[in-house]
Amino acid sequence: MNGAESLVHTLLKSGVTTCFSNPGTSEMHFVAALDRVPGMHCVLGLFEGVVTGAADGYARMAGKPAATLLHCGPGLANGLANLHNARRAATPIVNIVGDQATYHRPLDAPLTADTEGWARGVSGWVRTAMDVRTVGADAAAAVQAAMIAPGQIATLILPSDTSWNDGGIVAEALPRLPTPPASPEQIERAAVVLRRGGAGIVLLLGGEALGEAGLALAHRISAATGCRLMAQGSNAKVARGQGRVSVDRVPYVVDLAVKAMAGTKQLILAGARKPVTFFAYPNKPQSSVPEDAEVQILARAEQDIVEALARLVDALGAPKVAAPDYGPRSEPGRGALTPEAVAATVGALMPEGAVIADESVSFGRGFFPLTRSAPPHDWLNVTGGAIGGGPPLATGAAIGAPGRRVINLQADGSAMYTVQALWTQAREKLDVTTVIFSNRKYAILLGELANVGANPGRTALDMMDIGNPDIDWPKLAGSMGVEGATTDTAEGFADLLAHSLKRSGPFLIELLV
Amino acid sequence: MNGAESLVHTLLKSGVTTCFSNPGTSEMHFVAALDRVPGMHCVLGLFEGVVTGAADGYARMAGKPAATLLHCGPGLANGLANLHNARRAATPIVNIVGDQATYHRPLDAPLTADTEGWARGVSGWVRTAMDVRTVGADAAAAVQAAMIAPGQIATLILPSDTSWNDGGIVAEALPRLPTPPASPEQIERAAVVLRRGGAGIVLLLGGEALGEAGLALAHRISAATGCRLMAQGSNAKVARGQGRVSVDRVPYVVDLAVKAMAGTKQLILAGARKPVTFFAYPNKPQSSVPEDAEVQILARAEQDIVEALARLVDALGAPKVAAPDYGPRSEPGRGALTPEAVAATVGALMPEGAVIADESVSFGRGFFPLTRSAPPHDWLNVTGGAIGGGPPLATGAAIGAPGRRVINLQADGSAMYTVQALWTQAREKLDVTTVIFSNRKYAILLGELANVGANPGRTALDMMDIGNPDIDWPKLAGSMGVEGATTDTAEGFADLLAHSLKRSGPFLIELLV
Repeated sequence: MNGAESLVHTLLKSGVTTCFSNPGTSEMHFVAALDRVPGMHCVLGLFEGVVTGAADGYARMAGKPAATLLHCGPGLANGLANLHNARRAATPIVNIVGDQATYHRPLDAPLTADTEGWARGVSGWVRTAMDVRTVGADAAAAVQAAMIAPGQIATLILPSDTSWNDGGIVAEALPRLPTPPASPEQIERAAVVLRRGGAGIVLLLGGEALGEAGLALAHRISAATGCRLMAQGSNAKVARGQGRVSVDRVPYVVDLAVKAMAGTKQLILAGARKPVTFFAYPNKPQSSVPEDAEVQILARAEQDIVEALARLVDALGAPKVAAPDYGPRSEPGRGALTPEAVAATVGALMPEGAVIADESVSFGRGFFPLTRSAPPHDWLNVTGGAIGGGPPLATGAAIGAPGRRVINLQADGSAMYTVQALWTQAREKLDVTTVIFSNRKYAILLGELANVGANPGRTALDMMDIGNPDIDWPKLAGSMGVEGATTDTAEGFADLLAHSLKRSGPFLIELLV
Repeated sequence: MNGAESLVHTLLKSGVTTCFSNPGTSEMHFVAALDRVPGMHCVLGLFEGVVTGAADGYARMAGKPAATLLHCGPGLANGLANLHNARRAATPIVNIVGDQATYHRPLDAPLTADTEGWARGVSGWVRTAMDVRTVGADAAAAVQAAMIAPGQIATLILPSDTSWNDGGIVAEALPRLPTPPASPEQIERAAVVLRRGGAGIVLLLGGEALGEAGLALAHRISAATGCRLMAQGSNAKVARGQGRVSVDRVPYVVDLAVKAMAGTKQLILAGARKPVTFFAYPNKPQSSVPEDAEVQILARAEQDIVEALARLVDALGAPKVAAPDYGPRSEPGRGALTPEAVAATVGALMPEGAVIADESVSFGRGFFPLTRSAPPHDWLNVTGGAIGGGPPLATGAAIGAPGRRVINLQADGSAMYTVQALWTQAREKLDVTTVIFSNRKYAILLGELANVGANPGRTALDMMDIGNPDIDWPKLAGSMGVEGATTDTAEGFADLLAHSLKRSGPFLIELLV
């Protein structure tokens, strides 16, 4: 058995059954091994940013890591931006990065690069598999490392000779390392604050606290104590819709965030970090939380957040409460394609179990309120601010959650970074509806220009204008095998969205907003 | 004057007049400064791989660096693959990478990343501009560093507060550092070998040796001594066509490379490195040069290569010789779209001064012989093996060499990595003809599978098949404002190529090969 075969066997034994791939020469033995070792679902991406972003979306839905297969340092480099997003989402991913043979590397052939150096910026675990006899064990260790709570990126660099040499040994799966509980003091300090009560207590939720179980517990705490629930600005996955408490996120725009968090006297963190602004701005605060607010950490991201919430419920004696009722489901929007009309339409039509992959950026900041009465669904954000996360995230989510419709709410500028994801959606016949907010500009930057006090002229405005020439989204999608259509009315959007939900496979809707 | 303004002023004073940009929030003051400080030509890319690859193509033609403007670590990461190619081409580039404000970085906001760490893998010079008073001087140092022979990448990381603070000071341009000459011993050792003569002497050319002056000198040396001229496998720029000696490149495929270099007893390096294979393969050599060949270094890449060739000509007393005559120009190909028919057509129709941006990968390995009788032109290779170099290279070359037609000979799989370059070509109305070799597979990998002795099955073959679904290239180009057409005959190609050369602006030709 060669090294590549022992690696594939070990990945399968460790529960890794999907591999998002963009292979090159140095990975040919790995690719060949995928034939001889059945059981791995291989999904091809035409660009590595698609591969890594899809691995992120997959793991968020499947609850276990996918592997990626990337080609040498530059292949990894193309995937780094979405690995950065995945790192911020605490998504478990196992990268397999092919590389020069161990004995060829010193010759500095043209494709040789500092693969390990580039991997370190996104990975919690990096190892180069130097020996065919231990590459199986390396793979098992990589999967174990990826699954350390709350999840992290493990990168295994695979020199080609480790892959092709004989003598590979299949390793047994390693046990999942236990997630440490919050300490009794963490629970008690939060309980003291909540028992004391009063205005300005905010329970800020992140990570698993935003899953169905975590939200139900947080809702009980809020109902019993009157504390306010908030969610981090960007989150890997939020359980939403009927039967779930709807939690507002800390806004992106600094002034709105400051307003949202004004009056906070006690901030209790449940898997969340104290909010910081995305960027610094001249003469604006770096955190939306008032400076004199006290901060309690109920559970860190790497601790068992849901269990901590349950213990806090017990400590408070917070009784069970009915799920909140936010009234009837929204009606589809009418008239102009305002953010509200779009949100109402999505809320009105999305099927139960839908997965929203949200890279709507500036256009979608107000989508939450109008979708909270929709059937139960999951909402995924692009978490690290590296744009181009949405289309790959949708692609991977569709593979990680088969049978569920994925709706990718997608800014046009961002979509262009990883537009090749549409091809993978067509190839794999994935049930993804991509909704492009085609405003033909980097709208977020116009807001940022104002925020930093800059006064744009012609050159600056040209740098935010992606409408010269206009991108024809249905044509672009069609060139890669995905049908699409354009509309400039809410009624047209409702028709196209309903149409896409009735069919199987991908569809793209361009909204001229 | 704020820091951004002092930076733009200094870049202009240092001769940097073109900025390929994909800006984000942290670069807003830089963008605003571009309005207030006239003179910088700003070119927007919709993906950072386009930006960095275009900067590579620009500098290869303009002979001076462009700036790039990239957004934080992930923006830089998206540009790394083509920076890797640029590093291998020894192209001077000045990266400006916006980043978090100095005082915001410790808060680890979502977009914070190890920007410096990622930059180091491709840059010969990295600095973070920590102080508004010295950012001008930093910029001048960056340009000076980029121009150190043979050229390198200088990355200046620009925290947003350095950019927006008042107190910027414009710096004078720093002098270009002298390029060291080859030592007398280097010249003499090469002269001794060449005077002794005999079979098996190869003068291997790289870098400036492949420019018009270098080639003329090499031709004299070869004519006087009978030594063989060869070029490195991938080169930043080769002067070709009528009046220039045509030099074969060391082939990519190991067995062909070994055959090409067989019998080499003395290898004299003029700005080239001793050939190593792109990858190691089981039971194949790592260099195409026979193990017992002696190696002389006439000039290292960082030395003055053309001057060394001139001194060698003098030492040998090699007389002036007429330019070689390779016979009449090729006739356009006929019938099926074989590599030979394509090369003959390009050779027959390209205008004088054409720039060939070659990322033809497997299809174009034999293009050189049939184009050597074409009018004088320059040939650019993707140099580092990171795919997706071609379309950006063509884009930047068209801006760096205005008035000259760029022909991008482009593999389909590779084109998908940086397909957004077409949009920039449309926006800037660049005279680029993109010729897509649409074989709908990663053909190179099928060859590599055979090379490593792997026996592909269904899963493996699926990973090399990009024809399911087929990509419709004219539609894809049209969606971004570039007209295009498809053909499956050599006659059709000749018609479309002639059509594209007669018009201004970009055009795409898909060849079903």
